Amino acid sequence: MAETAPGVERAFSPQDCAASAQRIMQHCEQLAALSSLPDGVFRAYLTPEHRACNSTVAQWMQQAGLGSWQDNAGNIWGRLAAAQENAPVLVVGSHLDTIPNAGKYDGILGVVLAVEAAARLRENGLELPFHLDIAGFGDEEGSRFGTTLMGSRAAAGRWNPGWLELRDDQGVSLAAALQDFGCDPFAMQSCDRSGEDLFAYLELHIEQGPVLEKQQQALGVVTSIAGARRFVVQIHGMAGHAGTVPMDMRRDALVAGATAVGLVESIGRRFDVVATVGQLQCWPGAPNVIPGECRFTIDIRSGRDSIRDLALDTLVGEIDAMVAARGLQIDWSETHNASAVTCASHLQRAMEDVLQAMHLVPVSLVSGAGHDAMSFDGITDVGMLFLRCAGGISHHPDECVEEADVAVATAAFLNLLLALGRRYSAGANG
Amino acid sequence: MAETAPGVERAFSPQDCAASAQRIMQHCEQLAALSSLPDGVFRAYLTPEHRACNSTVAQWMQQAGLGSWQDNAGNIWGRLAAAQENAPVLVVGSHLDTIPNAGKYDGILGVVLAVEAAARLRENGLELPFHLDIAGFGDEEGSRFGTTLMGSRAAAGRWNPGWLELRDDQGVSLAAALQDFGCDPFAMQSCDRSGEDLFAYLELHIEQGPVLEKQQQALGVVTSIAGARRFVVQIHGMAGHAGTVPMDMRRDALVAGATAVGLVESIGRRFDVVATVGQLQCWPGAPNVIPGECRFTIDIRSGRDSIRDLALDTLVGEIDAMVAARGLQIDWSETHNASAVTCASHLQRAMEDVLQAMHLVPVSLVSGAGHDAMSFDGITDVGMLFLRCAGGISHHPDECVEEADVAVATAAFLNLLLALGRRYSAGANG
Repeated sequence: MAETAPGVERAFSPQDCAASAQRIMQHCEQLAALSSLPDGVFRAYLTPEHRACNSTVAQWMQQAGLGSWQDNAGNIWGRLAAAQENAPVLVVGSHLDTIPNAGKYDGILGVVLAVEAAARLRENGLELPFHLDIAGFGDEEGSRFGTTLMGSRAAAGRWNPGWLELRDDQGVSLAAALQDFGCDPFAMQSCDRSGEDLFAYLELHIEQGPVLEKQQQALGVVTSIAGARRFVVQIHGMAGHAGTVPMDMRRDALVAGATAVGLVESIGRRFDVVATVGQLQCWPGAPNVIPGECRFTIDIRSGRDSIRDLALDTLVGEIDAMVAARGLQIDWSETHNASAVTCASHLQRAMEDVLQAMHLVPVSLVSGAGHDAMSFDGITDVGMLFLRCAGGISHHPDECVEEADVAVATAAFLNLLLALGRRYSAGANG
Repeated sequence: MAETAPGVERAFSPQDCAASAQRIMQHCEQLAALSSLPDGVFRAYLTPEHRACNSTVAQWMQQAGLGSWQDNAGNIWGRLAAAQENAPVLVVGSHLDTIPNAGKYDGILGVVLAVEAAARLRENGLELPFHLDIAGFGDEEGSRFGTTLMGSRAAAGRWNPGWLELRDDQGVSLAAALQDFGCDPFAMQSCDRSGEDLFAYLELHIEQGPVLEKQQQALGVVTSIAGARRFVVQIHGMAGHAGTVPMDMRRDALVAGATAVGLVESIGRRFDVVATVGQLQCWPGAPNVIPGECRFTIDIRSGRDSIRDLALDTLVGEIDAMVAARGLQIDWSETHNASAVTCASHLQRAMEDVLQAMHLVPVSLVSGAGHDAMSFDGITDVGMLFLRCAGGISHHPDECVEEADVAVATAAFLNLLLALGRRYSAGANG
């Protein structure tokens, strides 16, 4: 990179980060090979693959000059230390676990890119006024024990001791899996970073949606992380012979379920929330039998809880009325309820400034997906940057990012760290 | 029963048939115990249970004074012979096989009641001018080899030699199963009754629908047996993250499938046909993933093929347009296509006369379900009587008939045989 005259702000360009981007892509490929599947990526929490992944990432951290350690939740950490030992801490994190048959970037990219950025800072002798602590969380997806965000919740001091009794599908308890991983399941408070002087929590993640691609932008600033509510809905009708029960004497649970699916789509459009039926089954499930039972899930999300809940109330009323009008019964069971997390406006502004200085359009968007960042809500200011992914595809082997976008992201992330450092120093000195 | 004066038509009342009804109910219970399931009824074609069932029914036939034989398709037959050896044959049939977890009456009742009626005729010295051949067909449901109506199609001379290569889920071929049952799979033409002088084919069957119950009538006259067409429809969309893909960028295969389910119901109402989606599945099938694929079945039936096909054409057009408007793809695959069978009007009239003479309302109705009677369409005149069943429930352990209704049915069936005999004799003499 070009020398910067004194007094002029040091800034990285995508061109400066071309080699970094290439290395980041290689590192993502390398971690993708640490999988329990021969022909796909699957790396669950506290598995041999997770151990190999942590060990590889720790090696990269050490090569970048970071101090590295694994905490009792199986999270891997690296620190680029500030000059002042009592400086605050900027946590940059994402997750290293995957779902079965995953892509190579979801979570992974944010950790790998942060380590590379730290290496560039150190290589260029650029010091930050806060410790830069990079976290590779061990569990975000919940693929093994069903509960998500366990890694970051441990780091945020939100570990639930009841989780130790969770079991995987082989019957192995979380407590036993932690012990086998070299962690002390009864010393989880040692993972808790919430009592420290935290400057902020930052996360870079692939968008997992198509908005940035449609807007033709490599990066976007997350305004909030949507709070999701999830339900399992069961409609009880009456099975019958498809040939012998006249249309007006039927109590077809699938027709009612299908009508509900239409109402879910409609509520999403009318209230500008996202609402999805991802699972639907009907019984008995023979071509010549009228379904007597239908079960489906509803997932509804918004960056604003109040709008989501208003949409939901309307939806429940509409579905209940439709089911009653058809003479059927319905059961609702809420399985998940998370509040939306608003990203700190000063972090959003800092990201926008960085993007504008790089002549990029600072697209703002809501994260519909949940992220480790949510664990830090209320503990420190949270900020997220999204990176464009091809077709919005994620949780799939086709998940794909462009190396050129990764170069843009690396430069932007470095510039963001420097900008936050300058602002912190100015505030501390002002 | 009361003595009948000479010249006055002999007629049975339900009271006359109370003991018969009790015996019929007991016989249905007895056959229900011949099952491969410990706690439910399942009797598939050419199984040990089928063998035990045929042997029991043959015993009842012999006790009733009928000559009894098993044909090469595993159908059990009993003959109440006419005085004239060269008399025509009235075939009365139904099936003795069941689906898994079946009721006790579907098919069974028609065979058991016919044997009891023959016993009453013989006991009362009432002779018919035609041979009364009672058939207990071995396969109607298709539970074991997937193809339905094999028993009656063998008897109607419509056996397909290609069926011999069908295999059950244990890999046993139909040819091997027939041989194991003591049948000669290469002499199926010996089962063919179509070349004989057939007077008619009659079948008594439970309604399997709620119409008679709603009309508060024990019996109904079938006008036609609906012809069904069945399709498997697959909609191809694009899976995506339920949180990150905005509503207006989705290609949700389940929403399209659900909309199609609504159109199927609507077409049924608009065209007065029955139309059913009995199976629907979507993939990948996780609460937080937009379904990318949806597959469902459509079953559409009417007593009139032309109306059914017009309804179907309209439906296909509506679904295709809806799917295209959503930017998705669709594949249609027809899996079944049977023409409607019209019951002979002179048999319908004879049944109506009998019911009116018994002071019953002669309800006419279409059979939405397929029956063995369909196999005899075009070979001889076909007539069907339906018996009320509780709640219209069939293909279920809750399948239930009232003993009082069975008494009415036995009397009506006897009166019908006598009426047809009188009419035949009058015609033959006139």
